[in-house]
Amino acid sequence: MRPGMLAADGTVRDLSDHVEDITGATLDDAALAKLAALDVAALPVVEGDLDLAPCVGGVGKFLCIGLNYSDHAEEAGMPIPEHPILFMKATSAIVGPNDDVVLPRGSVAGDWEVELGVVIGKTAKYVSEEDALDYVAGYCVVNDVSERDFQIKLTGQWTKGKSCDTFGPIGPWLVSRDEVADPQNLSLSCDVNGQRMQSGTTGKMIFSVAEIIAHLSQLMTLHPGDVIATGTPPGVGMGIKPDPIYLKPGDVMELEIEGLGRQRQTVRADD
Amino acid sequence: MRPGMLAADGTVRDLSDHVEDITGATLDDAALAKLAALDVAALPVVEGDLDLAPCVGGVGKFLCIGLNYSDHAEEAGMPIPEHPILFMKATSAIVGPNDDVVLPRGSVAGDWEVELGVVIGKTAKYVSEEDALDYVAGYCVVNDVSERDFQIKLTGQWTKGKSCDTFGPIGPWLVSRDEVADPQNLSLSCDVNGQRMQSGTTGKMIFSVAEIIAHLSQLMTLHPGDVIATGTPPGVGMGIKPDPIYLKPGDVMELEIEGLGRQRQTVRADD
Repeated sequence: MRPGMLAADGTVRDLSDHVEDITGATLDDAALAKLAALDVAALPVVEGDLDLAPCVGGVGKFLCIGLNYSDHAEEAGMPIPEHPILFMKATSAIVGPNDDVVLPRGSVAGDWEVELGVVIGKTAKYVSEEDALDYVAGYCVVNDVSERDFQIKLTGQWTKGKSCDTFGPIGPWLVSRDEVADPQNLSLSCDVNGQRMQSGTTGKMIFSVAEIIAHLSQLMTLHPGDVIATGTPPGVGMGIKPDPIYLKPGDVMELEIEGLGRQRQTVRADD
Repeated sequence: MRPGMLAADGTVRDLSDHVEDITGATLDDAALAKLAALDVAALPVVEGDLDLAPCVGGVGKFLCIGLNYSDHAEEAGMPIPEHPILFMKATSAIVGPNDDVVLPRGSVAGDWEVELGVVIGKTAKYVSEEDALDYVAGYCVVNDVSERDFQIKLTGQWTKGKSCDTFGPIGPWLVSRDEVADPQNLSLSCDVNGQRMQSGTTGKMIFSVAEIIAHLSQLMTLHPGDVIATGTPPGVGMGIKPDPIYLKPGDVMELEIEGLGRQRQTVRADD
């Protein structure tokens, strides 16, 4: 596994002479500025089909905000929350953006959730909403894959349905914050088997990225490399009327966020 | 920071010539057997007051089971769960067994929870209840410190009240599983300011350690170094009648589990 960079000409360049890996240790402003200052044209081109790893490694916390789009909350039949709803996905669920999503044994209600992912770049504690975006290293696409029966029927708390292995594809790219003019003005979508299921804009978030970071940092320290998934727009399988539609082996999910690239996962059942 | 071992004579011995740290990478049966085979009397004695670090480092997942003692569920006014209730604490909450517990700004309802901690020693997926304890490296004391207002009033899911920095003291010792004859027959207690608040026995667990491991391993892979806190017996501050009692700066918590040692934390408020 090697770290790489997407060049403006569409090629992928090898960064392994300049950084060991893209992790919390290499996401602060100085480290990102050092990478930004490289002569991209002089970096080796990586040829061939790429098997992309998660866009950030060594994630300490995988924090997720629930019901953060007003129209998704309505779809789920839940009231608009007063504060950001927080749950965690196991970091062991993280996979690359195009890796298979594996339904565990007994899974009958796998579901998709395209989300804007925020990767923390420097230690954040008690930060204000005004300063919050300074603590962001960059953004990425997250598929907050969910097993609704595990989430809802296995007694209490959502973690069980969110933490299965492979339920956290992140990437393809970690797009540094200077490349994202306004995180609250990005279109995002999820197609399943070529059919558009989710489409929305981050402008519809109930709690903005800055509000989320400020709120979470009152509760706990956010560390470099922590990832925050900021909620999903309407169109999840659980919300489809009259009957929900859930993932089955062979299904293909394609997720995209404006300026952050595309993910593509094939679903399979565990042996 | 150096790894150490508690010798039978009560001295602490330096293990740094034999293992770099006690983490998931050094918890499998072979690694533990290597440590067990050392001539303890020949290891250097560590003198003086020890500032104990968490008993396991590099924890990937800090999994917690809620309402797992029938009498605590009753105290909390909650029904007996049908399956183990799962939530996660942030791994950034982990501290040493005698470190200060720091109430974050705005905290008014800090609470104690003595719990049997289970440290996973080898990768576990779809394991049976019969085999489950083979995947345990050892056991430790956990204080599942909780902020009840954050947990209950900040909208949905318990994670917020469980994940504050310093809310996860673990240790003092990681006691290897061969030293624990029956994890379902250990007395455990928590004193606050010298007054016994919690006392119980792991025999009162609704779901045994083996059942918990088997259940969780159906949902996700458990990795070496993952920690599972298995729930708390009655006597938490939230449950005290007529009025709950919560932690205040200067309070001292002392927790003990039979054969696993004692923790002692002083509470302070964050600046």
